Amino acid sequence: MIIVLKPGATKETADELLKRIEDKGLKPLYMPGRERVVLGAIGDERALGTLHLESHPMVESVKPILAPYKLVSREMHPADTVVDLAGVPVGGDNFTVIAGPCAIESRQQLLNTAEAVRKGGAAGLRGGAFKPRTSPYSFQGLGLEGLKILAEVSAQVGLPAITEVVEVGDVDAVAKHAAAFQVGARNMQNFRLLEALGDQRTPVVLKRGMSAKIEDLLLAAEYILSRGNSNVILCERGIQTFETATRNTLDLNAVPLIKAKSHLPVVVDPSHGTGIRELVGPMAKAAVACGADGLLIEVHENPPDALSDGKQSLYPEQFEQLMQELRPFLDAVGKTLSTPAA
Amino acid sequence: MIIVLKPGATKETADELLKRIEDKGLKPLYMPGRERVVLGAIGDERALGTLHLESHPMVESVKPILAPYKLVSREMHPADTVVDLAGVPVGGDNFTVIAGPCAIESRQQLLNTAEAVRKGGAAGLRGGAFKPRTSPYSFQGLGLEGLKILAEVSAQVGLPAITEVVEVGDVDAVAKHAAAFQVGARNMQNFRLLEALGDQRTPVVLKRGMSAKIEDLLLAAEYILSRGNSNVILCERGIQTFETATRNTLDLNAVPLIKAKSHLPVVVDPSHGTGIRELVGPMAKAAVACGADGLLIEVHENPPDALSDGKQSLYPEQFEQLMQELRPFLDAVGKTLSTPAA
Amino acid sequence: MIIVLKPGATKETADELLKRIEDKGLKPLYMPGRERVVLGAIGDERALGTLHLESHPMVESVKPILAPYKLVSREMHPADTVVDLAGVPVGGDNFTVIAGPCAIESRQQLLNTAEAVRKGGAAGLRGGAFKPRTSPYSFQGLGLEGLKILAEVSAQVGLPAITEVVEVGDVDAVAKHAAAFQVGARNMQNFRLLEALGDQRTPVVLKRGMSAKIEDLLLAAEYILSRGNSNVILCERGIQTFETATRNTLDLNAVPLIKAKSHLPVVVDPSHGTGIRELVGPMAKAAVACGADGLLIEVHENPPDALSDGKQSLYPEQFEQLMQELRPFLDAVGKTLSTPAA
Amino acid sequence: MIIVLKPGATKETADELLKRIEDKGLKPLYMPGRERVVLGAIGDERALGTLHLESHPMVESVKPILAPYKLVSREMHPADTVVDLAGVPVGGDNFTVIAGPCAIESRQQLLNTAEAVRKGGAAGLRGGAFKPRTSPYSFQGLGLEGLKILAEVSAQVGLPAITEVVEVGDVDAVAKHAAAFQVGARNMQNFRLLEALGDQRTPVVLKRGMSAKIEDLLLAAEYILSRGNSNVILCERGIQTFETATRNTLDLNAVPLIKAKSHLPVVVDPSHGTGIRELVGPMAKAAVACGADGLLIEVHENPPDALSDGKQSLYPEQFEQLMQELRPFLDAVGKTLSTPAA
Repeated sequence: MIIVLKPGATKETADELLKRIEDKGLKPLYMPGRERVVLGAIGDERALGTLHLESHPMVESVKPILAPYKLVSREMHPADTVVDLAGVPVGGDNFTVIAGPCAIESRQQLLNTAEAVRKGGAAGLRGGAFKPRTSPYSFQGLGLEGLKILAEVSAQVGLPAITEVVEVGDVDAVAKHAAAFQVGARNMQNFRLLEALGDQRTPVVLKRGMSAKIEDLLLAAEYILSRGNSNVILCERGIQTFETATRNTLDLNAVPLIKAKSHLPVVVDPSHGTGIRELVGPMAKAAVACGADGLLIEVHENPPDALSDGKQSLYPEQFEQLMQELRPFLDAVGKTLSTPAA
Repeated sequence: MIIVLKPGATKETADELLKRIEDKGLKPLYMPGRERVVLGAIGDERALGTLHLESHPMVESVKPILAPYKLVSREMHPADTVVDLAGVPVGGDNFTVIAGPCAIESRQQLLNTAEAVRKGGAAGLRGGAFKPRTSPYSFQGLGLEGLKILAEVSAQVGLPAITEVVEVGDVDAVAKHAAAFQVGARNMQNFRLLEALGDQRTPVVLKRGMSAKIEDLLLAAEYILSRGNSNVILCERGIQTFETATRNTLDLNAVPLIKAKSHLPVVVDPSHGTGIRELVGPMAKAAVACGADGLLIEVHENPPDALSDGKQSLYPEQFEQLMQELRPFLDAVGKTLSTPAA
Repeated sequence: MIIVLKPGATKETADELLKRIEDKGLKPLYMPGRERVVLGAIGDERALGTLHLESHPMVESVKPILAPYKLVSREMHPADTVVDLAGVPVGGDNFTVIAGPCAIESRQQLLNTAEAVRKGGAAGLRGGAFKPRTSPYSFQGLGLEGLKILAEVSAQVGLPAITEVVEVGDVDAVAKHAAAFQVGARNMQNFRLLEALGDQRTPVVLKRGMSAKIEDLLLAAEYILSRGNSNVILCERGIQTFETATRNTLDLNAVPLIKAKSHLPVVVDPSHGTGIRELVGPMAKAAVACGADGLLIEVHENPPDALSDGKQSLYPEQFEQLMQELRPFLDAVGKTLSTPAA
Repeated sequence: MIIVLKPGATKETADELLKRIEDKGLKPLYMPGRERVVLGAIGDERALGTLHLESHPMVESVKPILAPYKLVSREMHPADTVVDLAGVPVGGDNFTVIAGPCAIESRQQLLNTAEAVRKGGAAGLRGGAFKPRTSPYSFQGLGLEGLKILAEVSAQVGLPAITEVVEVGDVDAVAKHAAAFQVGARNMQNFRLLEALGDQRTPVVLKRGMSAKIEDLLLAAEYILSRGNSNVILCERGIQTFETATRNTLDLNAVPLIKAKSHLPVVVDPSHGTGIRELVGPMAKAAVACGADGLLIEVHENPPDALSDGKQSLYPEQFEQLMQELRPFLDAVGKTLSTPAA
């Protein structure tokens, strides 16, 4: 850690700070320059977190050297993590497509869509029972009833199900009915929820928040891993920018960047990431090309009737065609399409 | 609501959509142009929310005419709402300063700080027991123990307390120990939490999310009001932008804009909004000048020892001086500084 | 065009505005709703640009129906434009890679790099003589001397050259020495420069500005086309967002979106778009996958010695390898790699 | 400067880099840690700019200690700069209001508006002759004819005039007709224009670019000062963010931040910064409160007839009232309203 003092900082201030560094068991370093005094702390600088050196009135800035996360980092764990999604591998040389409607609307709607995506080649089923909606007047999901439908359809069609959990009190119910938790963008920094999921062993698909830097996403994952659940799949789903032509700005740069920094699998959600049906295909292909480990894709048996996000949902035949079109891209990156467990 | 069809949309498509509009009890309108066909729906367009017209493959865009919120809007409720914070008025011609440490660290720390801010002229005490922190390795707050300290110090010093609630399961405990809930930026769209707070009657300070448009903030407040709790205070605390010189970009434009659109009081948090101690004073004055109804300010008895956010915390004497300096600005806008109830 | 009046607008105001619409030769439409009066104007709404209806104190908002650009739109010109870059086609079924150093540093440096990129399979040579740099103390390019070097090396190696023009006064000199102009992100809205380039017939590579919406980019291109130069190639090169892990956020969503809205070719610059050498390859592949018509890639004979942007420059052998790796992706999208004219 | 090496960097790499640092006359520092090797360079690190250490394949990151600008910094020049705008002081304890229409539309329109703003208490007149417009189909200004009108009206009314310059070729004409140049947000990084203005001695109002960090703005000013023109006034006018309720996000945080880092005066443009007439007043007051040295305000004799930006232009009587309302805020900050030279 590098500590830059303000102009005019005295030797006494420097000595006081150096002593605090030394007291934490780190090697202190004094680097007086012509315009600024710079201090260094060599060792595991995370030990300095409790010193809050940046709060000192004579400290101009603190520049960490090491990343603030550990368990999620590739340095700690060089090999790719492959998460087991009820028999379907996610990560490594596998490419896993999870598809389904935004929201579970009825048993028939989910079943029809699930059969269509299974036919198209998906290895997992998505569908929301608890829907976080910007407006209180929008459809909020079927709740527990939706979870039950999901579990039934999942079993019937033979696709492991993932579904969003929005509240600590629902963790057990979701764990009982689904093969994986999804944490939505709005809850990426709902730390109590992350902690509760860290105490589970069921896989977690953690979506990047709309204003989350990649480092924030990795720290959110660290919350889960640090409680003992290492079955975490990260998901890029678009960030909030000034561009209004797309619903969000799908940030594919995050894919190779996260893969370099972390061993966790990274999937991409081009449906939420763009909000536009016509862009889902091109961006899905781009996701494969830049190294993603899978896709979350919204498919609805009849998008104009969808109760939420119909504008970004594929028709079943569009999904089937996209899956065909992905194949040469998968070959080019050397990945194998995951298939349902049996 | 205005519905723009894609080029090439047929009359049949238009008729189908017009019929759906009419079936919802709205007056349909057909406006064929040279390059686009445009449809209109006259009436309470919120009824169309369930039609999801934007999902139709021949619909290019949907442009709402009315704001999607109702209860929070000034059109519905022209007079300023004045929230009663345990005897302290917030809103209207009042200006309410709530100050205290970022986190409750010990009884003595909170007491010393509370006495200092009371002496300086604050009308409320802030202090976090449950701290959402980006890293799992940072200080997470004292939890329930912190709540108890807060309640004791609040009573002893005679300042109503506000504190953050991060989880539905904690709502009762927080309601028992504090005069108001604070919903942090990261939880602004934790809708289950908003619903739970909507079922309470204790006031809620709702902070704007880092990627939340003003409309998103008003819709989040609508969640609370629509459950029956109209004691909502909105808080501008900075948004996520590309600028890195400040921790966030405090968006004071939001203050007059929200005041025009909504009857709810708006307070400003220049501490989180800037993240820099030296900017708290100037931006606090600017907040008064542009019409804010109050301030949330972080003060710590000794910022360099603070366990969180020390860099943005004022020293007690800085707070006292700022309160003096605010007076001519309050006079200029014609507001009266709220004082504690007794 | 849809004009929403403020609450309380009188019938007289509506009539006044409707008359102004009619006077412009458009069909006026009066749509009184319960909460708002809405006016419509049917016809080529661009005629209303001079009315500035949004300035009227009783107008709440104006919602255009048609895109503000014309000549660049695919509606006006459904077929893909193929720009002739001194014999090298850009657009349509072609995929064109233009590579070279950020800045021309010397004849030998440019020649070595040009030979390397030609060997690797590039069809064009890039290299800056006029370098816009954030700091006045950074290397500013060789200027006219650099242009001469570029022309010589371009001829010797047999690759058409593109280079940035930053000032109206340099347009002729650049036209004389290069096969195409590049307009940098910082000059995307330097409208006088755009007009000057519109008066030329030499192709223009127009880079998206760091805070430019896609619509802004298309309007900037419209400046050039409206003066008669339709040889415009658009370039996505990253936008300014809150993410600091990459230099910019390369917004690949723009590629399929622009291709849907415009007939102009779109190339991608993953070097500036990410600022990180290791991300250039993955994002180049993603650009192919989502439909780009080509790439601008920075290559330097020895990046650690580069006078600018070395951090994002590929080594020659990395470029050669990337070109090999792109082939299956090009096959998958059905595009043919452009080759130099001979 | 601090240089962090990648994991696995050898002692040879470190030695090579340390030698390059030493060769530049700086004191090299070797700090091997457990997880990373860190190098330091003590002295005027700007000398290292030519080494491009960040381009080295084994360098993870480079962290500068000193700001990259010099002449604009308050460290170099602790006292406030007061710019002389044809007899009107800008900076220090003065507060200078410059008002007028967005665009010069006719002699009569400018004269009427100029007389109104002079009556209201403005000390300078603004008005654009060269208008950068997003669309080529919008009104582009009267050009040279507009400059002549500006000079005449300025002399007649007795207010020094500022007007935008968009192109190096126009610098002399603008210098002849106006008391100060304005550089618009879109040209903040038009470095050739900045250099040309650096060779003048006429004051320059430099507006912050829509995607410019504060550091970028200060470096743009450094371009002008480094050529010898120190008469630079900085202008905050809003940045590009995700918020769409305002045209831009006026970033008032920039005011106290720039004042801390630089000796140059800072004015605020609430008209462009918000794009909404009703917000101009509140944000103008907030600008005074947080320490701005002046305002640029758009006033039009009849905003609904304005050829550009009418939506954000004040009516003359609104301007007059605002000027009255600003007085107690000016008293509170201890600033004196500048008056025209006489």
